[in-house]
Amino acid sequence: MIKVGIVGGTGYTGVELLRLLAQHPQARVEVITSRSEEGVKVADMYPNLRGHYDGLAFSVPDVKRLGECDVVFFATPHGVAHALAGELLATGTRVIDLSADFRLQDAAEWAKWYGQPHGAPELLSEAVYGLPEVNREAIKSARLIAVPGCYPTATQLGFIPLLENGLADASQLIADCKSGVSGAGRGAKVGSLFCEAGESMMAYSVKGHRHLPEISQGLRRAAKGDVGLTFVPHLTPMIRGIHATLYARVADRGVDLQKLYEERYANEPFVDVMPAGSHPETRSVRGANVCRIAVHRPQGGDLVVILSVIDNLVKGASGQAIQNMNILFGLDEHLGLSNVALLP
Amino acid sequence: MIKVGIVGGTGYTGVELLRLLAQHPQARVEVITSRSEEGVKVADMYPNLRGHYDGLAFSVPDVKRLGECDVVFFATPHGVAHALAGELLATGTRVIDLSADFRLQDAAEWAKWYGQPHGAPELLSEAVYGLPEVNREAIKSARLIAVPGCYPTATQLGFIPLLENGLADASQLIADCKSGVSGAGRGAKVGSLFCEAGESMMAYSVKGHRHLPEISQGLRRAAKGDVGLTFVPHLTPMIRGIHATLYARVADRGVDLQKLYEERYANEPFVDVMPAGSHPETRSVRGANVCRIAVHRPQGGDLVVILSVIDNLVKGASGQAIQNMNILFGLDEHLGLSNVALLP
Amino acid sequence: MIKVGIVGGTGYTGVELLRLLAQHPQARVEVITSRSEEGVKVADMYPNLRGHYDGLAFSVPDVKRLGECDVVFFATPHGVAHALAGELLATGTRVIDLSADFRLQDAAEWAKWYGQPHGAPELLSEAVYGLPEVNREAIKSARLIAVPGCYPTATQLGFIPLLENGLADASQLIADCKSGVSGAGRGAKVGSLFCEAGESMMAYSVKGHRHLPEISQGLRRAAKGDVGLTFVPHLTPMIRGIHATLYARVADRGVDLQKLYEERYANEPFVDVMPAGSHPETRSVRGANVCRIAVHRPQGGDLVVILSVIDNLVKGASGQAIQNMNILFGLDEHLGLSNVALLP
Amino acid sequence: MIKVGIVGGTGYTGVELLRLLAQHPQARVEVITSRSEEGVKVADMYPNLRGHYDGLAFSVPDVKRLGECDVVFFATPHGVAHALAGELLATGTRVIDLSADFRLQDAAEWAKWYGQPHGAPELLSEAVYGLPEVNREAIKSARLIAVPGCYPTATQLGFIPLLENGLADASQLIADCKSGVSGAGRGAKVGSLFCEAGESMMAYSVKGHRHLPEISQGLRRAAKGDVGLTFVPHLTPMIRGIHATLYARVADRGVDLQKLYEERYANEPFVDVMPAGSHPETRSVRGANVCRIAVHRPQGGDLVVILSVIDNLVKGASGQAIQNMNILFGLDEHLGLSNVALLP
Repeated sequence: MIKVGIVGGTGYTGVELLRLLAQHPQARVEVITSRSEEGVKVADMYPNLRGHYDGLAFSVPDVKRLGECDVVFFATPHGVAHALAGELLATGTRVIDLSADFRLQDAAEWAKWYGQPHGAPELLSEAVYGLPEVNREAIKSARLIAVPGCYPTATQLGFIPLLENGLADASQLIADCKSGVSGAGRGAKVGSLFCEAGESMMAYSVKGHRHLPEISQGLRRAAKGDVGLTFVPHLTPMIRGIHATLYARVADRGVDLQKLYEERYANEPFVDVMPAGSHPETRSVRGANVCRIAVHRPQGGDLVVILSVIDNLVKGASGQAIQNMNILFGLDEHLGLSNVALLP
Repeated sequence: MIKVGIVGGTGYTGVELLRLLAQHPQARVEVITSRSEEGVKVADMYPNLRGHYDGLAFSVPDVKRLGECDVVFFATPHGVAHALAGELLATGTRVIDLSADFRLQDAAEWAKWYGQPHGAPELLSEAVYGLPEVNREAIKSARLIAVPGCYPTATQLGFIPLLENGLADASQLIADCKSGVSGAGRGAKVGSLFCEAGESMMAYSVKGHRHLPEISQGLRRAAKGDVGLTFVPHLTPMIRGIHATLYARVADRGVDLQKLYEERYANEPFVDVMPAGSHPETRSVRGANVCRIAVHRPQGGDLVVILSVIDNLVKGASGQAIQNMNILFGLDEHLGLSNVALLP
Repeated sequence: MIKVGIVGGTGYTGVELLRLLAQHPQARVEVITSRSEEGVKVADMYPNLRGHYDGLAFSVPDVKRLGECDVVFFATPHGVAHALAGELLATGTRVIDLSADFRLQDAAEWAKWYGQPHGAPELLSEAVYGLPEVNREAIKSARLIAVPGCYPTATQLGFIPLLENGLADASQLIADCKSGVSGAGRGAKVGSLFCEAGESMMAYSVKGHRHLPEISQGLRRAAKGDVGLTFVPHLTPMIRGIHATLYARVADRGVDLQKLYEERYANEPFVDVMPAGSHPETRSVRGANVCRIAVHRPQGGDLVVILSVIDNLVKGASGQAIQNMNILFGLDEHLGLSNVALLP
Repeated sequence: MIKVGIVGGTGYTGVELLRLLAQHPQARVEVITSRSEEGVKVADMYPNLRGHYDGLAFSVPDVKRLGECDVVFFATPHGVAHALAGELLATGTRVIDLSADFRLQDAAEWAKWYGQPHGAPELLSEAVYGLPEVNREAIKSARLIAVPGCYPTATQLGFIPLLENGLADASQLIADCKSGVSGAGRGAKVGSLFCEAGESMMAYSVKGHRHLPEISQGLRRAAKGDVGLTFVPHLTPMIRGIHATLYARVADRGVDLQKLYEERYANEPFVDVMPAGSHPETRSVRGANVCRIAVHRPQGGDLVVILSVIDNLVKGASGQAIQNMNILFGLDEHLGLSNVALLP
């Protein structure tokens, strides 16, 4: 039984870790921290957990207690894992960070996008980017894993079969992404209110979103070279889900893209290449650790359209974190992640 | 491994049975029928099932094949189980009917509310009303189980502790119930459109809803006498969930209602009496086979307010059906039903 | 042209006043105040106003400038109008207060429910409760008008025909009310987030909501005696709308309730008694200053069910405030309020 | 007073015409037709209209009665206007068609996309495409106006300033469009159910949507040459609204796009070019006849992103139809269209 610690468990990725881990047969949450909710039982804060974690309460972060865990998840705002990860690693505990702290390999780039110096640049060289479809081998032996962001997961999984095979014009990639509101977290912000985000659609951060450098970094690795990406995120009136609509120029009209995608992901347990002509719905992955992808070439032109959907809280965050944990500890990758999406 | 058949699996209770049974370790769906979708794979109709039921396709109802199952669920409009249940029972197969066909014990009453003669009155004497919190013993040895309706489940579980103890004025009960739109099924009706049911609230069937006689029958059993119930259902702009707000006059102000409810349901795996002062949210049971209840006595008066929430498709339909199956086959009642509600 | 001032215009009742006044042919907004948004143009904060109020910006509250207006609306949290109303009245300006400050006639009662002393008890004797269907004559000559709350408007309009005629048992009234989330205002509270309030239903404040004493006060006036009211508000996943489901015992089964309601409101421009058997939807009043009512007597019993719907921001707040202004200044009551509800 | 007829008034564009025309000071609806609802009062079908059209009932289409109107709107499925327009024009009545019947100038193209022969090719030469921002002069003297579709309106208004000035690479245009569910109409289709379209996002018709040839035709006119457009529509869980996210390559980085757009639309009453850096929300135009546009050039690259939002039922259908009527009859273009968008 793997002993799990969670730092910062009051947000949506925290409760989602608890939801999924409640059904994991080989992991048990021993510690969950929150400064603001110290002493509160998790089931009092999140009544869906009643009957599942009745003894578990939030405690103040304590490296000693966390260090007794086999693995600690950070479900925190950026900056927190910088401060604690090193100490925890020193105790032999593995760290799986759901925040952005170790996603970018370049500390200066991180500082530019997050507006503060990188707090643990010495750990960057060993941080593994936890996208199993790309990095499974490295994950197996990692000590520190950076779980990809939600937009980056949907976008990279959609683009990489093209880029790895040099099929697309990497200088002209477009990712038009639509996210549910839970992507903005549980913070009390006016823009996330029901009456502000409901019954409306809007783009945001067109000038530059923090996920842009992360996506670009991943696409460069796939393309083995520079990429030019335009990334436009949109806020959509739904709670969960990301729908990435991806555009790429593929000059070679002879290539069988459907087959290419199916083969690329044939052995991936959580990527589902749908039949040709499909239009995946975000609800088909609601609550499930799956990325569903469909590939289109409208009117047989050279612009290829890839549709990629995930649940931002699952394959885009907590589910992927647990997938990383399973790989890291040599478990069946499905453990805790076998539930069917909730539809309707 | 229990062999399961499902008749009429294209609606929401059908797909919900499939979702839940996919995680049941001791049941396997062998047959699923639909006249309109013959030959279609269930995962093609419901993409959330991709990867879980890849071989399973809808077939035309066939008593012989269904009769080879250990149990057959009916997830059909009313009238269908009337026609088939008898034949199936004759083969030794158990029948768990999610429709209204065997919920009312009085065939004439059924005929009055459903506008057609009862099609199998000879089976009524052995049909067991599948509310485990009331009928667990009878369910164990039943051949034919009528799964309660969604409103009746939430309402009865809320009222029966009062009525069984003779505490409430049974002649003045009020159930003001709010349902998500999935309660109206997957039929293409104008009133269920996103643009009709969204961003709006309305009562319906105030004159008399088909669940009224079912609820009254259950409450009479609990009260051991006549009851006077006013039941007002409302359509609410959410997909899943029932919120029953129940009103009863309780003259005795000395009784400890919180304790009464806690004791009544102390051994019930799927009824959660929340702490005094709670306001259960329907999302706290979304996707889970739980009824959460809170008891209030505003301003210390004699009008007691009970709040009772369920997921209409789970504890109000398919989850409860599986709970009945587990009881019927002597299994742990939690099998297939241990998942945590999806929140947010 | 009436010169209008608005104090506290950044919330939902403030922007709704601006929306409606933009189409009022005889009123012009001269001043709108906000301490936090000083200098910001209203159309920059609320882009729906672009093209309508392009010169208007928020300013710091200033009694002198407000005192030059013919009427000042308070769209503020409670307590603010207490502090400013007296000074404004002294300048000859009329005050229409959308907050709760002058709704209760008893200062001690106010202090009890709002947890602070009443700040202007000396004005209570002249404050007129601005429910035109009850107080139109008093409104005409008022200096200070307290606009009713949203729940109180829907509930009182539903109950008063019964109570004024002594038909209902006034000791056993129940108001089961469902509100859209905009009723909670534009404050950044976790409970009002899209991901908290969406796809879910819950009761709240069952122990006692601040609108309870206001409703009771109004019902006592109608009943000319004491009333016993149980009021249970619910949060509903929609932006606008209140649906009040009202229950009353009416022993006399001979009375024609439909006729009673139609006659009571025959001359009311903004109360619509729907045909017998109707189920009003909140969307039928979205954006419009209308209360639609239907009267039911299920199964011919003595429990009468009244359905009453309003838009909480219009007839439940800003629209009613303008209706009061029209009456106060001797204008056609429809001015600025003639738009059709937005459906779908 | 203009006498107005409406053919096919039971759908969403029909009720929206009624909502807007109720406030038009110089138009009066004399006839409204529906075969299925003959004799039903419009206010009985659409209760938001109660008090506004109390005498008006649906009648069977009758060319004689319609021919007595000054103008007839078709709010019908495609094919209906083909059959009736000619007869009506012969009586001297003007026809404003909200359907797709006369939008494409090439009858063969129409037949290809709509799967049936064009029913009135002889009228194509005089049909005017009713996009006032492009065709105002022609509209003034038209007899037959084809009101643009919803996607085509948002997309053309967003692209044409670039194309008219030859600034964009016309061979590489992308329109990623998101529509509310009302765009699918009031037909009882499974895909439009609350439980199917709610809490989910999906693309559809990626292979080719019927609005593609209409948009291309308009863009060709603006570009004075061929265009290459990829158009991907998405279904979004909201009732009203279209958000078009448009991508174009603009090699010249010296051009001031903000100024270009502002000047292009400086005299347009219903196009609002927002300040640089804006992200228009669809709710900022809900219920209003406005297109709001923002222009971005992320990271100063050569890919320009234009955000264009409309209410699909207003500027994308019924409001634009009335704007056409106002132009056609020499009225102030704002009549009936001056209301402020409903926010929140």
